[in-house]
Amino acid sequence: MLLSQIGEVGLINKIKLLTQKQVNNNVIIGIDDDAAAIRITDGDILLLTTDTMIQGVHFDLSYFTFYQLGQKAIAVNISDIAAMGGSPSYALVALSVPPNIEIASVEQLYQGMIDLGGEYNVSIIGGDTTSSPKNIYISISLIGQTNPEEVISRGGAKEGDVICVTGFLGMSKAGLKILRNRAVFNQTKFGTVISKHLTPEPRVQEARFLVQNTNINSMIDISDGLSSDLTHICESSNVGAEIYANTIPVDRLTKEVALYFNESWIDYSVDGGEDFELLITLDEKEYQKIKQKFENRFGLKLTTVGYIKEKGQGINIIYDDGKITSLGYKGYNHFSK
Amino acid sequence: MLLSQIGEVGLINKIKLLTQKQVNNNVIIGIDDDAAAIRITDGDILLLTTDTMIQGVHFDLSYFTFYQLGQKAIAVNISDIAAMGGSPSYALVALSVPPNIEIASVEQLYQGMIDLGGEYNVSIIGGDTTSSPKNIYISISLIGQTNPEEVISRGGAKEGDVICVTGFLGMSKAGLKILRNRAVFNQTKFGTVISKHLTPEPRVQEARFLVQNTNINSMIDISDGLSSDLTHICESSNVGAEIYANTIPVDRLTKEVALYFNESWIDYSVDGGEDFELLITLDEKEYQKIKQKFENRFGLKLTTVGYIKEKGQGINIIYDDGKITSLGYKGYNHFSK
Repeated sequence: MLLSQIGEVGLINKIKLLTQKQVNNNVIIGIDDDAAAIRITDGDILLLTTDTMIQGVHFDLSYFTFYQLGQKAIAVNISDIAAMGGSPSYALVALSVPPNIEIASVEQLYQGMIDLGGEYNVSIIGGDTTSSPKNIYISISLIGQTNPEEVISRGGAKEGDVICVTGFLGMSKAGLKILRNRAVFNQTKFGTVISKHLTPEPRVQEARFLVQNTNINSMIDISDGLSSDLTHICESSNVGAEIYANTIPVDRLTKEVALYFNESWIDYSVDGGEDFELLITLDEKEYQKIKQKFENRFGLKLTTVGYIKEKGQGINIIYDDGKITSLGYKGYNHFSK
Repeated sequence: MLLSQIGEVGLINKIKLLTQKQVNNNVIIGIDDDAAAIRITDGDILLLTTDTMIQGVHFDLSYFTFYQLGQKAIAVNISDIAAMGGSPSYALVALSVPPNIEIASVEQLYQGMIDLGGEYNVSIIGGDTTSSPKNIYISISLIGQTNPEEVISRGGAKEGDVICVTGFLGMSKAGLKILRNRAVFNQTKFGTVISKHLTPEPRVQEARFLVQNTNINSMIDISDGLSSDLTHICESSNVGAEIYANTIPVDRLTKEVALYFNESWIDYSVDGGEDFELLITLDEKEYQKIKQKFENRFGLKLTTVGYIKEKGQGINIIYDDGKITSLGYKGYNHFSK
């Protein structure tokens, strides 16, 4: 059977089966979360994650500068550490590039990683540089730190939890649409939307604040899209969920982009990935207490979009017109044809 | 200027310059050693390394099974932890494969990593799987542990040190030669030589024994070749060196392979990479005391091949016929044309 037939989730499930016997007691969270969590000492947890960006699969040099590419490559990894409630600290960079690349381009790529990493106290401490036959591959491993009380997994969502998201969703998808149709849109007016796709801001401080000031039951970063990432939470937590489509926060500019293309901004917000906002579930009373504090502190919305339900009810998205869509894994499948 | 013009060492030097300002006081060893060393607590050092293997650059599926490929991919990373004197513990696997690959092949690849990793107490705790347009990319990050007293860098070689190597050199190159000319050689007779290329054994126990039982001044694993890796030691330690070519240990079967191809086995041992043996420098008296104990314990040779000299004398290899070659960086350059 080919990989394309079982898809990314099928592959990850097979890898989980193969690897589950070989972990020791210090592995608190292993494969199948944003990052692995390892007990290093009684009070110290190490968070470890890796993410790869491949030219032609994850990015296109027609709209990314090398500097922006460096920023995004490290940002998506930092976001995984944020989603565990941790603080990022060190990065290893495995870079494979064709020999005919300009050295200045590689330097700009590193400068982007260094500058964005620096904003989050991340130091690049090592890596590997190799020749690639054709495409650019950037695989970054990020090491973060936290403690046993503050580590948050995907697996703790409880029936009755409110489902919240930070910021706006669908914006990165709108940004990509603009980048692929540059002539049509005013680049200044749509600057925030474009930046959301090129150089997303991982929500490290925001996640740390929530972890330290309220009781979060589960958390994930929205990288694959709300539908996929909520499904990850539900599968790991063994629960169902209900999302009310018209409550998902969508920015005015994102709506404008969707309207231009005669597409649904609700679809952007449900299925569009790469926003790198946080998806959180917590008790509704806790949410009521923290919402205003969070929004005042960060100038960033914290919005409820639905509720965690019992598993038997499935994962459903309910639209204003009464239509209900049952969610399966609908995010980006890396191995589909 | 293109990357191919400055080569891998030129690129690493540029990356070092760019990144040197962003490391904090807990980074004991950063870029430009086998692994980075980070202080996690007063008594705990974390070792971090990453290595990439690319189809068509580092391996060829005409002579690697997927299982062997998995073994080698994790072995080369474990070897980097060994070369720092540490114990490997956790691995992150970033795997990019084309969608038309057999799922059974990916499972065999993982089984190879799991089985070889298991021999060295390494657990695979996470990773990323993505679609690759054409070639297979395997980028593994390995985490190891040690303590401040036992971490060994490339940079501590002292004038007068003996230069030692474990095992035999040139064997992996001879193995590759056989694999590319399978019909010519008896696969059973040359089994050890072939295995040396396909599934090298990282010298973890051997390095731990040396670190704990003698005073090593510097250590590196021989991945690029004796010439290149000795040059790394000399550059990091600011010293020169003298190697006596006829003292480099070469296995009888390796000599047979070289003779068949009418090539010099001394060249195999000087420039052939991927043996993943240890290159060590230490005081001669310490060497005399440990040699026999080491060889008895591991059934593996520990051989002196030369001396560390003052920097001004350069890095020279002296042949039996009186010929002297001054070594520059002659190992595999990933970006040369």
